[in-house]
Amino acid sequence: MKTTVKERELNAITTMEEDFAKWYTDIVKQGNLIAYGPVKGTLVLKPNAYGIWELIQQHLNQAFAKKGIKNVYLPLFIPEKLFAKEKEHIKGFNPELATVTMVGDKKLEEKIYVRPTSEVLFADLFRNSIESYKDLPIIYNQWANVVRWEKTTNPFLRSREFLWQEGHTCHDNSLEARNLTKEMIKLYASFFKNYLAIPTIMGKKTPHEKFAGACSTYTIEAMMKDGRALQAGTSHYLAQNFSKQYGIIFKNKENEFEYAFQTSWGVSTRILGAIIMVHGDNRGIVIPPKVAPVQVMLCTLFGHKNEAVAEKGKEIFKLLKKSFRTELDDSEKNPGFKASETEIRGIPVRVELGPKDLEKGQVTIVRRDTLEKIQVPFGEMKDVIKKMLLDIHNNLYEKASQRLKANTVTVFDDYEHFKKEIQNRKFVIAPFCCGGEVEDLIKEETGGTTRCIVKLSPAETRGSKKHECIFPECKGKTTRFVVFAKNY
Amino acid sequence: MKTTVKERELNAITTMEEDFAKWYTDIVKQGNLIAYGPVKGTLVLKPNAYGIWELIQQHLNQAFAKKGIKNVYLPLFIPEKLFAKEKEHIKGFNPELATVTMVGDKKLEEKIYVRPTSEVLFADLFRNSIESYKDLPIIYNQWANVVRWEKTTNPFLRSREFLWQEGHTCHDNSLEARNLTKEMIKLYASFFKNYLAIPTIMGKKTPHEKFAGACSTYTIEAMMKDGRALQAGTSHYLAQNFSKQYGIIFKNKENEFEYAFQTSWGVSTRILGAIIMVHGDNRGIVIPPKVAPVQVMLCTLFGHKNEAVAEKGKEIFKLLKKSFRTELDDSEKNPGFKASETEIRGIPVRVELGPKDLEKGQVTIVRRDTLEKIQVPFGEMKDVIKKMLLDIHNNLYEKASQRLKANTVTVFDDYEHFKKEIQNRKFVIAPFCCGGEVEDLIKEETGGTTRCIVKLSPAETRGSKKHECIFPECKGKTTRFVVFAKNY
Repeated sequence: MKTTVKERELNAITTMEEDFAKWYTDIVKQGNLIAYGPVKGTLVLKPNAYGIWELIQQHLNQAFAKKGIKNVYLPLFIPEKLFAKEKEHIKGFNPELATVTMVGDKKLEEKIYVRPTSEVLFADLFRNSIESYKDLPIIYNQWANVVRWEKTTNPFLRSREFLWQEGHTCHDNSLEARNLTKEMIKLYASFFKNYLAIPTIMGKKTPHEKFAGACSTYTIEAMMKDGRALQAGTSHYLAQNFSKQYGIIFKNKENEFEYAFQTSWGVSTRILGAIIMVHGDNRGIVIPPKVAPVQVMLCTLFGHKNEAVAEKGKEIFKLLKKSFRTELDDSEKNPGFKASETEIRGIPVRVELGPKDLEKGQVTIVRRDTLEKIQVPFGEMKDVIKKMLLDIHNNLYEKASQRLKANTVTVFDDYEHFKKEIQNRKFVIAPFCCGGEVEDLIKEETGGTTRCIVKLSPAETRGSKKHECIFPECKGKTTRFVVFAKNY
Repeated sequence: MKTTVKERELNAITTMEEDFAKWYTDIVKQGNLIAYGPVKGTLVLKPNAYGIWELIQQHLNQAFAKKGIKNVYLPLFIPEKLFAKEKEHIKGFNPELATVTMVGDKKLEEKIYVRPTSEVLFADLFRNSIESYKDLPIIYNQWANVVRWEKTTNPFLRSREFLWQEGHTCHDNSLEARNLTKEMIKLYASFFKNYLAIPTIMGKKTPHEKFAGACSTYTIEAMMKDGRALQAGTSHYLAQNFSKQYGIIFKNKENEFEYAFQTSWGVSTRILGAIIMVHGDNRGIVIPPKVAPVQVMLCTLFGHKNEAVAEKGKEIFKLLKKSFRTELDDSEKNPGFKASETEIRGIPVRVELGPKDLEKGQVTIVRRDTLEKIQVPFGEMKDVIKKMLLDIHNNLYEKASQRLKANTVTVFDDYEHFKKEIQNRKFVIAPFCCGGEVEDLIKEETGGTTRCIVKLSPAETRGSKKHECIFPECKGKTTRFVVFAKNY
């Protein structure tokens, strides 16, 4: 076999067992997902990556529309003074704010920040749009780019500009807002399960880890193949923190003025990193069928030398396109190259049609997750693929769930054991009642952080209601169980 | 009738005959389309406006996909040095560039511009992605926000940040690139006709008016109801201008290195301004049915006092939702208010169900463009609305075409007549062969600018091939006909 440059490149994937970080950057690169932007830490999302994001947008938009959520677009820029009103918020974001000070050669009178998130802009909008409880609730969502000047960057996981959706709401009572905060994190969890085949652990952030400016933050945490956690989506109950600073006031039913209750929630292009690190393998990425821009790659083998194969290939392509997002590779590349390329790109199903297949009136179908290969008569092709795509989704979810379960441990009493399990890249659940200082200390000692507070069943907590805090010096007893893990 | 505050507001639209600019801002405001952002000249697109933009995106994405155009996302930021390579380009954009110089409290080593357009970023991407003619053509599109610090701003027409799509392509030969430039402007023209019901005049920009950095620019120009032109979409043939400065090189079939040939093309949220000023009337905006986020407003009248009406309303709502983007107004507001609100929002079809309608087994249907009112039995409702939406589209297009035709004049020889017609807010076609200095002079004298170079039929040019240039001091003869008009 003549090996071209591209083929050699295709084989150059470091295994994940050897070096997980290198494996990740290798397959991101080989999958032709991104390019680096000219400003350090910025990314180009190429069609293979942006196509996944577009499908995520479509599915979430449908779920949002069912809940009556309306999409809007707010500006990129926030004036310095406006941003500064909510003190916790500005404190949390200030070091990362890209700041516009000039236009052309002229200095601006007031500094302008590029939005790192849009609570402040929505607060300004709500302040001007709401008069009465009759105007509430308002439930808006926006798809936008945001900028946070991170020191270290990593494709999808941490880049200085990223894409996301951010929902922002206003309510006339606290209960409705708190309920919506929880509804949205549940919506994200089921989206991750049903569309991305990713199981998550849902819970509340500790006060130390909550969003700057929020009253409470809910999160879904996913486990990557190296055992590290990835915060995959968050939903914040903002209470009246912003409405008091920004004057979002409404007249309630008793004709009295009151501050609105707010929430915000979002998921970002980090999702693409999660997909890669949950489902990918040493052959490349594996895209869950529902968000795969190409679900079926149809490869004709030796079609350039065999007119009958080429003809039949076109016919099958027409047929498959009607039911699946399908691409045809009728190039002169050799079969092995076509197979590798489909695998690296993570396309769920590969359909091969060679001269022998044609003779037998069949195609050869290979699924990306298990690499199983089957021969299928032309007439059954469509039904087989339809079922296969569902099977792939279910199998990916099942495998990820088993991995999550197998690598989550609950530790009582034994702090040394607790530390060791974190260092072993497990999700470690432990009774824990201490504050941020202790969280920082544990991070220093183990590299692990608190991911979320979870509710355990009586069986899981050994039946007893209160447990000694895992931090030995604490001596306190608590019912609070917290997940610790190393994280991205 | 008890008049509420909101009702009074609804009536406060300045007529377009009285003051067109005031009419425009009035109906933009009354239609609940936008809010102003906290930084001067920036806009919030509320659901009524953003919903139109989402439908425009959907339709254009479909048209793009048919041509094999793939969506990507490139960064917001351009380093100063990178931007400066193409001299014409930087010269054209420099005064409008929002510039990031700081992050947090730290000064950046190199200034960073917020993209005003992305030729430079795509050039950088292409330079790194292309090796051989086999990699070409590349045809990418991105949906993005861009920033141009305009001195005077106007909702949708000119704002400091706006949303758009920008296509960027690379080809291995000039002909293919030039053809694509023309194909894309034609695609835009037919999109404007078939989806927005807006007729346009298509042509080439004069060198004075072309895009900074392009070899040639094609445009579609639409006529607003006040006779002024709006540049509604552009397509640029960039030749090798950027590829030479940015080093976009490929190996051609003869194994020689060559610079790539490029195009770029785009439409923006200006489209929303065009829709308003082409179709709107003194009652509010009029949204063409294919891009109307709500196509049918179903109003139950006195439903809160009449259970049978409320029930039937719900039933009809379920039915209509299946075929049309439908909203139900079953509030206690009075019928007149519901009617005005539907009209102001520009919703194409209003369906009313009152107690009398229910008795007769009918609904009352009102179309937004003509305000015609008809009674329709329940069973025929769906078919009637389906046809009506098509009729509305056709009628809007027809009326706009007639207006464009009636207000376009060709002027030979007589410069005074030419000037007067421009001041009369006509599109004035005239033979014209002079350069930018004369264009500036004509602009000073008349307020009109060259919109585009058009091809006329022999009949329209009075059979003769060469005509005296309309500018008296020129004395030259030319076959070039140029459209002049005042513009937005």
